[in-house]
Amino acid sequence: MNTDEQRFGMSVKKEENFPEWYQQVVIKAELVDYYDIKGCYIMRPNGYYIWKVIKEFFTKEIDARGVEECYFPMLVTKSSIEKEKKHIENFAPELAWITKCGDEDIAEPVAIRPTSETIMYPSYSKWLKSHRDLPLRLNQWCNVLRWEVKNTLPFIRGREFLWQEGHSAFLTKEEAVEEVFDILNLYKKIYEEWLAVPVIPGIKSENEKFGGAEFTTTIEAFIPQSGRGVQAATSHFLGQNFSKMFDIKVNDQNTDEYVFQNSWGITTRTIGVMVMVHGDDKGMVMPPRVSQIQVVIVPCGIKNNEEANKKLFEYIDGIEQELKKNNIRVYFDSKLNVQPGYKFNHWEIRGVPIRLEIGPKDLKNGNVMLYTRFNQNKRSEKRENIGELLSKELDIIHQSMFEIAKKERDSKIVRTNSWEEFMTAIEDKKMLLVPWCQDPDCDDDIRKSSTIHDENGEVVSMGAKSLCIPLENKKYSGEKCIKCDKEAKSDGLFGRSY
Amino acid sequence: MNTDEQRFGMSVKKEENFPEWYQQVVIKAELVDYYDIKGCYIMRPNGYYIWKVIKEFFTKEIDARGVEECYFPMLVTKSSIEKEKKHIENFAPELAWITKCGDEDIAEPVAIRPTSETIMYPSYSKWLKSHRDLPLRLNQWCNVLRWEVKNTLPFIRGREFLWQEGHSAFLTKEEAVEEVFDILNLYKKIYEEWLAVPVIPGIKSENEKFGGAEFTTTIEAFIPQSGRGVQAATSHFLGQNFSKMFDIKVNDQNTDEYVFQNSWGITTRTIGVMVMVHGDDKGMVMPPRVSQIQVVIVPCGIKNNEEANKKLFEYIDGIEQELKKNNIRVYFDSKLNVQPGYKFNHWEIRGVPIRLEIGPKDLKNGNVMLYTRFNQNKRSEKRENIGELLSKELDIIHQSMFEIAKKERDSKIVRTNSWEEFMTAIEDKKMLLVPWCQDPDCDDDIRKSSTIHDENGEVVSMGAKSLCIPLENKKYSGEKCIKCDKEAKSDGLFGRSY
Repeated sequence: MNTDEQRFGMSVKKEENFPEWYQQVVIKAELVDYYDIKGCYIMRPNGYYIWKVIKEFFTKEIDARGVEECYFPMLVTKSSIEKEKKHIENFAPELAWITKCGDEDIAEPVAIRPTSETIMYPSYSKWLKSHRDLPLRLNQWCNVLRWEVKNTLPFIRGREFLWQEGHSAFLTKEEAVEEVFDILNLYKKIYEEWLAVPVIPGIKSENEKFGGAEFTTTIEAFIPQSGRGVQAATSHFLGQNFSKMFDIKVNDQNTDEYVFQNSWGITTRTIGVMVMVHGDDKGMVMPPRVSQIQVVIVPCGIKNNEEANKKLFEYIDGIEQELKKNNIRVYFDSKLNVQPGYKFNHWEIRGVPIRLEIGPKDLKNGNVMLYTRFNQNKRSEKRENIGELLSKELDIIHQSMFEIAKKERDSKIVRTNSWEEFMTAIEDKKMLLVPWCQDPDCDDDIRKSSTIHDENGEVVSMGAKSLCIPLENKKYSGEKCIKCDKEAKSDGLFGRSY
Repeated sequence: MNTDEQRFGMSVKKEENFPEWYQQVVIKAELVDYYDIKGCYIMRPNGYYIWKVIKEFFTKEIDARGVEECYFPMLVTKSSIEKEKKHIENFAPELAWITKCGDEDIAEPVAIRPTSETIMYPSYSKWLKSHRDLPLRLNQWCNVLRWEVKNTLPFIRGREFLWQEGHSAFLTKEEAVEEVFDILNLYKKIYEEWLAVPVIPGIKSENEKFGGAEFTTTIEAFIPQSGRGVQAATSHFLGQNFSKMFDIKVNDQNTDEYVFQNSWGITTRTIGVMVMVHGDDKGMVMPPRVSQIQVVIVPCGIKNNEEANKKLFEYIDGIEQELKKNNIRVYFDSKLNVQPGYKFNHWEIRGVPIRLEIGPKDLKNGNVMLYTRFNQNKRSEKRENIGELLSKELDIIHQSMFEIAKKERDSKIVRTNSWEEFMTAIEDKKMLLVPWCQDPDCDDDIRKSSTIHDENGEVVSMGAKSLCIPLENKKYSGEKCIKCDKEAKSDGLFGRSY
């Protein structure tokens, strides 16, 4: 291994030091880079491409549902943002305030959006007059700012991040609730059908719901190596909480009715979850559908024989063209001054799903050597119908990656009604599915009771919190809550969390 | 006219009170709405759609050139932004500073990006090592903030606006300069081939170039009713100014070379220019290629005859399907409780390029009534091959709108070498093409000399400034500058400006 390979290779194993492994893989796969302001990260083209694919899929889906795209200002006045009490309670400590312009103080400081309910809803109040103006369904792709002071981590928790936020208004509760779950299902598709990451859809507990929402639906992912759940996207039913505060009502059958509202968002956290779930000791492993390069071709066995090289490159050119015709994103790494071994490492750490190694012997036999990154398997294949073969192979890789991830995730879910087993499982980096009363005090109690302190009272391991009440839920009758004396209403999914 | 029509109709003519006309048209066509912070505007779906079309076209073009998409943080430290002296001079007064988070003061305040040279280039310095890493060509679509205190105007000058900013680095000056003009030409295409707005490409004078650039290329549009030029997009050759300040160099043939850089951007100002150029006394007139709805169908002659109405709607449905097959964005306004006249006004003020009016008589004769918004012309056409006909018609409309705008613009350009004629033309709301020395002091002098003051010394009419030195330029030899005694180097395009 030469110095460059050492410099660019992974120097830590995923199971051994997961936090360090993550920091290395996002940098070395050139997904992000650090920046000189804490909690702000640079999304490099290799990382941003994933976001582009997600945007394209989601935009197409919501377009078809009649959601329209718009853009609201990122600045918000104090009076607007303080209108909904529970909402501002949630966001106040993280608000960034602009107080100066040039050398001058600004008369009334303004905040940067942490989310846009209070920015958009005054307009909703102005625009909506009649039930015929409903539904109003708007979406914007933008940046938001939340001044996180600790635990910042690329993609997972940043001060500035990118997201889409959808905001809709309906005449009836039924229509609004239907949309909440429809969108949640789209978010699930993003994770499962594009990023090959399994998620559990559910409802957030009262303590964990969005500030100002009636209820919050969520999809929860899980990271086996850290033993932590991660909130993957949320879709909120706001009921009439905001419409009453912002006076958003429409005339229907000669009476004024407050509208029912939703808001829903998915962020660039998606990318971090994907990296954590799929990456391995050699670096990133890209799910094929979001990978900027799906197939890389590396010529091998190059000698000082111009005639032979020309023939080999023609053979490869033909393959490249065929893959492009099959809508495969292919890159031919034709550099002559770089050894194949170096190229292998280069593309391996970036996680390109398929590598074709093609040398004079392959040319002679009409073959290609096919390497699949996710299982590090190498096999020889016929060159014939290579486009069709690799199209299918990419789908197989996606499906396999999803199944492996799901199997691993499922092996980390423990079902119990014993508090002792609960504590053991948390220490074993697992999630728990337990009978639960859903009471907010019990929610707090579980977190506190599962937090582990050292002899000086310092927190050694954070407590488990309610991740969600899964939509797929066991029926209970007469059973007790895992922690308190109240009756269990449903399963609760608990675990440590990002 | 009922009250609604009065409320929603235009109440002022374009030629009579242009500033008021513009404020009305952008609101009433639902392109933007006002917001409770000065200089911040809401882009409604009808306006945002135009930006989406521009993004799609431009992204496709730069993708094909190998430019990659990324996203850098919007926050910048004081030390970074102050690195390039001329650059910070330009932007310092407009910088918005975050000094507080929640209730706490921030140790080191950070600014919001007014543009991202100083945010991106420290990374360029880190990433670029060898000439093999070049060219580096990155682009991002984002928001920027410039704390404008006066003359804010929807789309044209806002505190926050949307844009793309491209930033590239090359080994040689030649490659960089080639890109500057290639991108400028793409910007010209956006205006001319999508927005049907003629622009003049040129070079900015020394006084008007971007802070930190070697030279700035620009395309300049013109608004006849206000008699003002408007900078429509710019593409800068930065030379080695930033690479020397940010230490961006690569090893080439065993020596370290500072890279040559460009930056280039186009903003949502595009939409404002389009509105100003094409709108008329009835409201907006949308250039067809960026219009969210290209054809609206309004059923007419609806009576209380269910059978007849059903037949008419079937006839219209067939037409709608045919238009969709021809990739025309069509909307069938089928509401039964709204009169056709009201619908006409509704779509007219929004500027939908084509309206089809279809009634029982048209059904009987196999016709449609075709109304083209830009020239307010109405004619009967055969229903046969309507898809093909309207596809062509949309192209004809685009071409006609461009030619009308160009003819009007050209009629406002005065060529002279007399200062007296210069002053008369400025008062007549025209632009001037004059022999010019290109001297910065002369640039200042022309502006000052053409500013008109009242008896108390207050400015009544702003002065003419150098808009650009057009790329298409007359050769001079021995002629004098229009204003000073120096020799004319080239034409200068002068006029009042936004």
